[in-house]
Amino acid sequence: MTLLKARRRAFDILERDLPGDQVADAVHYFLIATILLSVIGAVLATVQSLEIRDQWWFTVGEHIALGIFIVEYVARLWVAPEHPLRRGLSAGAARLRYAVTPGAIIDFLAILPLFFALVHEHDFHAVMVLRLLRFLKLARYSSGFNALYLAVKRERYALVSCFLILCAGVLMAATAMYLAERAAQPVSFGSIPASMWWAMATLTTVGYGDVVPITTVGRIIGAVTMVSGLVMLALPIAIISSSFSEVISKHNFVVTFSMLSRLRPFSELGAPELGDLLPLLNSRSFDRGHQVVRRGAVAEHLFVVLEGRVETETPDGPVVLGPGDVFGLVPGAEGALAAPVRALAKTKILAIEENELHMLTARHPGVVRRLVAAARRNEEG
Amino acid sequence: MTLLKARRRAFDILERDLPGDQVADAVHYFLIATILLSVIGAVLATVQSLEIRDQWWFTVGEHIALGIFIVEYVARLWVAPEHPLRRGLSAGAARLRYAVTPGAIIDFLAILPLFFALVHEHDFHAVMVLRLLRFLKLARYSSGFNALYLAVKRERYALVSCFLILCAGVLMAATAMYLAERAAQPVSFGSIPASMWWAMATLTTVGYGDVVPITTVGRIIGAVTMVSGLVMLALPIAIISSSFSEVISKHNFVVTFSMLSRLRPFSELGAPELGDLLPLLNSRSFDRGHQVVRRGAVAEHLFVVLEGRVETETPDGPVVLGPGDVFGLVPGAEGALAAPVRALAKTKILAIEENELHMLTARHPGVVRRLVAAARRNEEG
Amino acid sequence: MTLLKARRRAFDILERDLPGDQVADAVHYFLIATILLSVIGAVLATVQSLEIRDQWWFTVGEHIALGIFIVEYVARLWVAPEHPLRRGLSAGAARLRYAVTPGAIIDFLAILPLFFALVHEHDFHAVMVLRLLRFLKLARYSSGFNALYLAVKRERYALVSCFLILCAGVLMAATAMYLAERAAQPVSFGSIPASMWWAMATLTTVGYGDVVPITTVGRIIGAVTMVSGLVMLALPIAIISSSFSEVISKHNFVVTFSMLSRLRPFSELGAPELGDLLPLLNSRSFDRGHQVVRRGAVAEHLFVVLEGRVETETPDGPVVLGPGDVFGLVPGAEGALAAPVRALAKTKILAIEENELHMLTARHPGVVRRLVAAARRNEEG
Amino acid sequence: MTLLKARRRAFDILERDLPGDQVADAVHYFLIATILLSVIGAVLATVQSLEIRDQWWFTVGEHIALGIFIVEYVARLWVAPEHPLRRGLSAGAARLRYAVTPGAIIDFLAILPLFFALVHEHDFHAVMVLRLLRFLKLARYSSGFNALYLAVKRERYALVSCFLILCAGVLMAATAMYLAERAAQPVSFGSIPASMWWAMATLTTVGYGDVVPITTVGRIIGAVTMVSGLVMLALPIAIISSSFSEVISKHNFVVTFSMLSRLRPFSELGAPELGDLLPLLNSRSFDRGHQVVRRGAVAEHLFVVLEGRVETETPDGPVVLGPGDVFGLVPGAEGALAAPVRALAKTKILAIEENELHMLTARHPGVVRRLVAAARRNEEG
Repeated sequence: MTLLKARRRAFDILERDLPGDQVADAVHYFLIATILLSVIGAVLATVQSLEIRDQWWFTVGEHIALGIFIVEYVARLWVAPEHPLRRGLSAGAARLRYAVTPGAIIDFLAILPLFFALVHEHDFHAVMVLRLLRFLKLARYSSGFNALYLAVKRERYALVSCFLILCAGVLMAATAMYLAERAAQPVSFGSIPASMWWAMATLTTVGYGDVVPITTVGRIIGAVTMVSGLVMLALPIAIISSSFSEVISKHNFVVTFSMLSRLRPFSELGAPELGDLLPLLNSRSFDRGHQVVRRGAVAEHLFVVLEGRVETETPDGPVVLGPGDVFGLVPGAEGALAAPVRALAKTKILAIEENELHMLTARHPGVVRRLVAAARRNEEG
Repeated sequence: MTLLKARRRAFDILERDLPGDQVADAVHYFLIATILLSVIGAVLATVQSLEIRDQWWFTVGEHIALGIFIVEYVARLWVAPEHPLRRGLSAGAARLRYAVTPGAIIDFLAILPLFFALVHEHDFHAVMVLRLLRFLKLARYSSGFNALYLAVKRERYALVSCFLILCAGVLMAATAMYLAERAAQPVSFGSIPASMWWAMATLTTVGYGDVVPITTVGRIIGAVTMVSGLVMLALPIAIISSSFSEVISKHNFVVTFSMLSRLRPFSELGAPELGDLLPLLNSRSFDRGHQVVRRGAVAEHLFVVLEGRVETETPDGPVVLGPGDVFGLVPGAEGALAAPVRALAKTKILAIEENELHMLTARHPGVVRRLVAAARRNEEG
Repeated sequence: MTLLKARRRAFDILERDLPGDQVADAVHYFLIATILLSVIGAVLATVQSLEIRDQWWFTVGEHIALGIFIVEYVARLWVAPEHPLRRGLSAGAARLRYAVTPGAIIDFLAILPLFFALVHEHDFHAVMVLRLLRFLKLARYSSGFNALYLAVKRERYALVSCFLILCAGVLMAATAMYLAERAAQPVSFGSIPASMWWAMATLTTVGYGDVVPITTVGRIIGAVTMVSGLVMLALPIAIISSSFSEVISKHNFVVTFSMLSRLRPFSELGAPELGDLLPLLNSRSFDRGHQVVRRGAVAEHLFVVLEGRVETETPDGPVVLGPGDVFGLVPGAEGALAAPVRALAKTKILAIEENELHMLTARHPGVVRRLVAAARRNEEG
Repeated sequence: MTLLKARRRAFDILERDLPGDQVADAVHYFLIATILLSVIGAVLATVQSLEIRDQWWFTVGEHIALGIFIVEYVARLWVAPEHPLRRGLSAGAARLRYAVTPGAIIDFLAILPLFFALVHEHDFHAVMVLRLLRFLKLARYSSGFNALYLAVKRERYALVSCFLILCAGVLMAATAMYLAERAAQPVSFGSIPASMWWAMATLTTVGYGDVVPITTVGRIIGAVTMVSGLVMLALPIAIISSSFSEVISKHNFVVTFSMLSRLRPFSELGAPELGDLLPLLNSRSFDRGHQVVRRGAVAEHLFVVLEGRVETETPDGPVVLGPGDVFGLVPGAEGALAAPVRALAKTKILAIEENELHMLTARHPGVVRRLVAAARRNEEG
């Protein structure tokens, strides 16, 4: 019983999902600092003139970092059964399920140097690359990587088109330059792959200048390639930039499963429902006094308060809603005007867009019914 | 009769317009793979150190690819009379009409190396360029090239203005630099065309650095040119990027004539009507549960379902529409509110904007009348 | 009398403002071709290896071009009194007034080489720069230069801020690099102005690479400068790009005074009214069937048809409007819904925004009153 | 008494907040000119070949500039008690409070060279850097620096994400290149920090070309890095550019405390209220005849006229409002339509957004109550 409580506490600390948990904050920043120091150490160790690798303190530091990551990895494995997504599994099955998630695999790679040290001679470069992978552990703490991933995923067809256009551009520029310059510069433009190096550097406007055309025809081809490069530059900027800034404005903080399972309307959901729900949630922060929903706006989201307090208007007067309360769009009443909602304190809110809500209704009608019932209660005061 | 059926089947496979046709999918990906391998081979063959061109397997592979493209070209010529756009023509006329389309010309150029091999000595570079043109065969399969073409076409006046401004900038920068640096660097800045090479590299921010000003006056001119370059960079980005992302969001997939002619409201149209209709169609995909038309929105498009199912509301209750069904804007009722429409499954929809619909009405009133009649039927249940 | 008619005809040809005037089109394209050939010749003449300058045909060509530009300049001077902006002036005063406009000055500079040839020895470089200025004569024919000018003017405060930020960045980066690298590279970073050359190339991402930091501290400063450069790049792109694409979408073609004075509602206006009116006019083209004003939109512009035909709805049924007809927003009825308007043919329309209309009312109430009266007539059928 | 009046006058001149004060304008431009000359002098003094530092006029000029800045610093200290934010403090406390503001610290650093000259040998480089810091004194006069600061602050989370992504990109590119090229180029790619220099230059598309991959594997890694660079470029452009142009359009001019305290509704506010109010204010300029609030728009701001005149409509007819008058949104009536407001002359207006107004209500209900009362008065005529 005590062990189970300790495991629960350890899970809360590692997931850092209790607001204001100072122990969790300390662990969190300690781990980030360890990652950064370990990565910086691994980077500097490749500078031979510094002779860091032969210093006793570097070896000690590296072993301490390795030890911390092993403890972290083991601890995460140990608390894995506490995860709401793995409720109902046996402890062993839950740990195995956790061990194959991308986060756990990165954590495992981060401690792999241990095994190299144990089983055979120290192969420096393999170990170093593994240590640098620790930087990816930071992805757990930042919503930016996630936003970039979502933006790229959302625009994947357009980006593939973009890439094909870039390939066609590189191919045409390289072929033209190969034909024009191969006599004058047989080393730099002696084959199409060699010319492609120049074409890439020019179309992306990097322009190293290690290889440049010297004939008149080559320079004219070069000028056309530069101008095409401006267009080539515009395409991914157009695609990624609007998508990324939109995604990042909708994902102000990282939402974890345990945050979700702690909220009243989601507390009794099983792993499949939570797993389907999580990617549909936008996360937004509002400062005190700011509007969550504008007066007169059409209801377009279903909201759940995660932290803080908001005030909304009902026919029976203003109502204050807190963590776990639901408000906003009710399926079947699309197009209706929303009641104005305003944050009374710094508030974190989860939102589901109307489109996603319908997708969810099709899969888990029970979840949506429960959310809607909760929203109706609040609207009637 | 059996031959005609085989021709019909071959046409369906080559156009790949029956949803879920696995043979067509296999042929489709096989051709893409052959194109890619052939282009990669042609590129690598220019690397003399690899000595690929003398290998027996390279020659064999090249002949196989050539054979596949010849079969493809002949097959496309053979099935040409099946194309809805060429209905009513004799088989010979239909094939001739097809043979002069851009796609057929690219296909023909891709098999030209055959004739080089037959009639005279192997002129490597001419053959190689022809083989690289095979990459353009991919344009048939990607909506990205088309979107770039449409975006450039739509913004052609603005891009010409942009180009004139760039020319003026290059001319002014090159002249100033020629006057400032020709004494110090007679080779690099000894004439205005020579200075233009530097001006292009600077204004596009490529910046090779093979030619740089060394006098004080030259560097001041260079600094002004760099700052102008930032503005020069902004103009095409502004023009292309908004246009390209808008076009690509409206053209989610490639619409072919045979897709169109298979849909009920278009099935009896002749070649001229189809030819005028196709460029006006936007193609959009919707995931299950997503809104095609928002409740309360003003009707701005006439829609035709291509694949999947949508649900709309009529005075007599909800109605499910499938492939070939028409809904949305009715000419003469502009400004009216649209009925909300939602996808019940992954759905592909064709849309005509109000402006285009009027243009079509002026040319082919019968087509629009038939579409409107179909839409009215659906709205009344 | 005949001479006056000829002058009128010459004016129409040079201004090219009668739609479908084939002589004017021919003159127009002939002049553009002459400008381009003359500029290309002047550019190529600086390439000494081509020895163009000694060829008899180059000298002849240059004299012919000079002759054409002299004829054009004299012709424009001669027809100057026909210009509506200079009505009521004596012929001499009108010509003097014209001669000091920017366009006339550029035209004059383009023929200056004549006087060099007459009065003294052939100073090649001065003459060449004057010949290259002929490129600016093209500005008369393109709306792009004008749009860039308007965009830069509209955003001048933001651009000055941008420039100050760039200066601060260059100053800080150059000073830091001067302190870090002046010992290691006394030639390249031996003074702050020398370091500024590197800082400019880095902050604008041109990156020549002729001067690069080699010390560790210098490279860290360099890395910070590069990242700042990304931000520096974003600022003018943000400012210019939205402004330029907005301006260019509102100025589809060049509006001349004579176009204006030919339209009924403007035909009796004097020079001051026309001079104040012209810069307020947006020029937009609409294809057949496209909407000029959407049904249900709030009236925000007053429109005048320049070419083509549009159809609008009045209480008495549809009305067709042609060149010189006025419709749209009426001052005092702001916020009212506009009647829908659709182009029946390719149509060119002039538009005044509500804000500008009020500014015009304050200065020339008579002009606005006349426009409003014309608009009222059309709306009542 | 006379001294106090002089101090008041000096304060008005230094803050330049009386519209049309010609003495203040003269002092203002004189100080800007002195800063620019002083900075240009300090920059050119590092060019040894110019031998400026040994010229008598340079030393004299530098002393004059130093003298002017000392006078300015002392004057600003002297008038500090006049500042509305420091009302109620003793003169000494007010001056101390002023002396620790960023502006005062920059002013102090700008006169530090004095003390170097007094106490010990002339250390040129320390003095020079201090003199260059004078450029930052210009920030006082430009709203651009402030807008960049606000834009960066508003998007700080997104920019940190961006920076992490850039770090991950640099780390991955540098490690891959280190593994691929360290054998071929032990100097340039002999360690990860060395490879990072190349990775930074490539990902930011600066592309110096001092270090480039030469092996085939290295060039493939380089090509991947360049393409990633295009994405890397898009992220900060997306984040900064929309934010910066939005901020700069809301902050047309610099608002000072004394401008504020001069306006009727703010004249009796104490330092804390003014200090909380100032950062919430947007500042916008409107030309004569332009709309401040469109007819039919929802009221979203509370406005205060700073300079000029506007006309609004009330049930009792049009009312003209001047400096200090309040209009627009009234808390509790959100979502109501705003009365149309138009500028009658060139007008400067301060605006508070609805969200900020509520934040202010929570902190200083009295301030908002007074503003609302003033607005009500104007609306009822």
